[in-house]
Amino acid sequence: MRILSGIQPSGQLHIGNYFGMMRSMIANMDSSELYAFIVDLHALTSVQDRERLSRGTLEAATDFLALGLDPERCTFWVQSDVPEVTELAWVLSTLTPMGLLERCHSYKDKVAKGIVPSHGLFAYPVLMAADILLFQAERVPVGKDQKQHLEVARDIAIKFNNTFGETFVVPEPVIDDSLATIPGLDGQKMSKSYGNTIPIFASEKELKKKVMAIVTDATPVEAVKDPDNCNLYSLFKLFAPKDRLTEVHGLYVNGGAMYGKIKLELLDLLWEYFREPREKRAQLLADPGQVREILQRGAVKAREKAVVTLDLVRDRVGLKY
Amino acid sequence: MRILSGIQPSGQLHIGNYFGMMRSMIANMDSSELYAFIVDLHALTSVQDRERLSRGTLEAATDFLALGLDPERCTFWVQSDVPEVTELAWVLSTLTPMGLLERCHSYKDKVAKGIVPSHGLFAYPVLMAADILLFQAERVPVGKDQKQHLEVARDIAIKFNNTFGETFVVPEPVIDDSLATIPGLDGQKMSKSYGNTIPIFASEKELKKKVMAIVTDATPVEAVKDPDNCNLYSLFKLFAPKDRLTEVHGLYVNGGAMYGKIKLELLDLLWEYFREPREKRAQLLADPGQVREILQRGAVKAREKAVVTLDLVRDRVGLKY
Repeated sequence: MRILSGIQPSGQLHIGNYFGMMRSMIANMDSSELYAFIVDLHALTSVQDRERLSRGTLEAATDFLALGLDPERCTFWVQSDVPEVTELAWVLSTLTPMGLLERCHSYKDKVAKGIVPSHGLFAYPVLMAADILLFQAERVPVGKDQKQHLEVARDIAIKFNNTFGETFVVPEPVIDDSLATIPGLDGQKMSKSYGNTIPIFASEKELKKKVMAIVTDATPVEAVKDPDNCNLYSLFKLFAPKDRLTEVHGLYVNGGAMYGKIKLELLDLLWEYFREPREKRAQLLADPGQVREILQRGAVKAREKAVVTLDLVRDRVGLKY
Repeated sequence: MRILSGIQPSGQLHIGNYFGMMRSMIANMDSSELYAFIVDLHALTSVQDRERLSRGTLEAATDFLALGLDPERCTFWVQSDVPEVTELAWVLSTLTPMGLLERCHSYKDKVAKGIVPSHGLFAYPVLMAADILLFQAERVPVGKDQKQHLEVARDIAIKFNNTFGETFVVPEPVIDDSLATIPGLDGQKMSKSYGNTIPIFASEKELKKKVMAIVTDATPVEAVKDPDNCNLYSLFKLFAPKDRLTEVHGLYVNGGAMYGKIKLELLDLLWEYFREPREKRAQLLADPGQVREILQRGAVKAREKAVVTLDLVRDRVGLKY
């Protein structure tokens, strides 16, 4: 099974990312042929800042490698290092009906949020289709917000195959619902846009500030509490060993749960949980040349696959003379 | 002065093309640094037929070489052989306001004429801007219908320069009005879409049929006629030697002009005018490998320029990490 995952190069990874996308990506590495790439070309639709984009790309690569993405067991590269994708995007755009893009919610939502309505933002789903089809991906894990874009990719693949003959694998979405269930500090879905995240690689001080700010209710210690309606408990559950979780569950339902103490315990658990990645990350940050080299090797590997698809496409549409 | 001209790979060249675009292109070869390329990627927006596109590309190259385009004195290539253009097109699209494209008449006109409204058709001006800016073209000869697209290219160049620092030459249009003054068989502007053309490389028989079909009025031979309102005379004027033109002008204004005879004379003139290109073309058609080789060498030359621009662009926007 060939699985493809795009990684945004913008900003700090948080534990919502980790338990959603990251963990399943790592799992896919063993069970499937994983293609994972940093979408710097897509990021250009929202980041028009040289420093921020280039730093974001290197940081995202560093973080993912630190968290366990193993470039030997997958193909890991930066989108713009495989420029075949833009060539394919153009070809695909010539058979993408305007109506298909006009119906995309994501464009309208982003514009409603104040992002400048650029043509790149509008054409986003076509480049995304090219990403997927170039590598003949069979499965694409996406959040609910990207499901429609995957439909676009499927529609384009089917249309191309019908027009020019069997060429592309028609990709299947894998809707990752787990992402939605990680609550943020305020109990809403953890998301950068809500400003309620717990960054994975925060400093200890910063992390403490975040954890202590987890919103809880005002019931007294001895009161009976509902663990299923407590976002502190939901977060605690992600990191606590089973036995300890059972104990704390008992304190909730029988009374005796002290939020402050549980928060401090969560802080320790969090700190331990990401100790190894943190150390690995420090080592990679000290040697960015190593990260660049890994990405360059990944791009070579990705291009080997990309040129095969593109060569076929060029032949099919008549770009070979 | 760096001049850039795109060549459509679709269909037979006619004498309207020749006296408009072609002749000035040949002239530009000597006075300027000419970049001429066959726009197969753009053609995909209207041609979804492998055979037709690939044949059209080779034929266009053959015809232009036959008509005097000298690959040693210009850079002559096929658009898709310099894929850097699609990469630049993506980058440019991220700072192209949607409104700029929505205002383009050409898209609306084409859709009104029944061409399927694909995203490629809509994005056409962005790829055209990339063509122009990739080669830092200073002048772009365009027909009136393409003038707005050149404005788009200028707007994008200016916006990029303002956002990321001086990067692109802002191109100037050269509006080629001469194209509009060549009348077709029926007196309207000569244009493939009106079906009133005289193909340059038609067979003698076909050419005769076309020339004899030039529409004239029904005034008798001895009547006085207005040469300035006669499309036969307008066409005759393009090919006749000066002395003979004066004579025929006399027949028009004093009476005695026989349309049938003038048509036969025009036929001879036409046949002679394109004799050398016709022979050169026959030779190239017999050896398509030679044409392919010329185009490949041209692509290498074009890429040398393209990679310099693209490298700068990648650096400016933050695609280098």
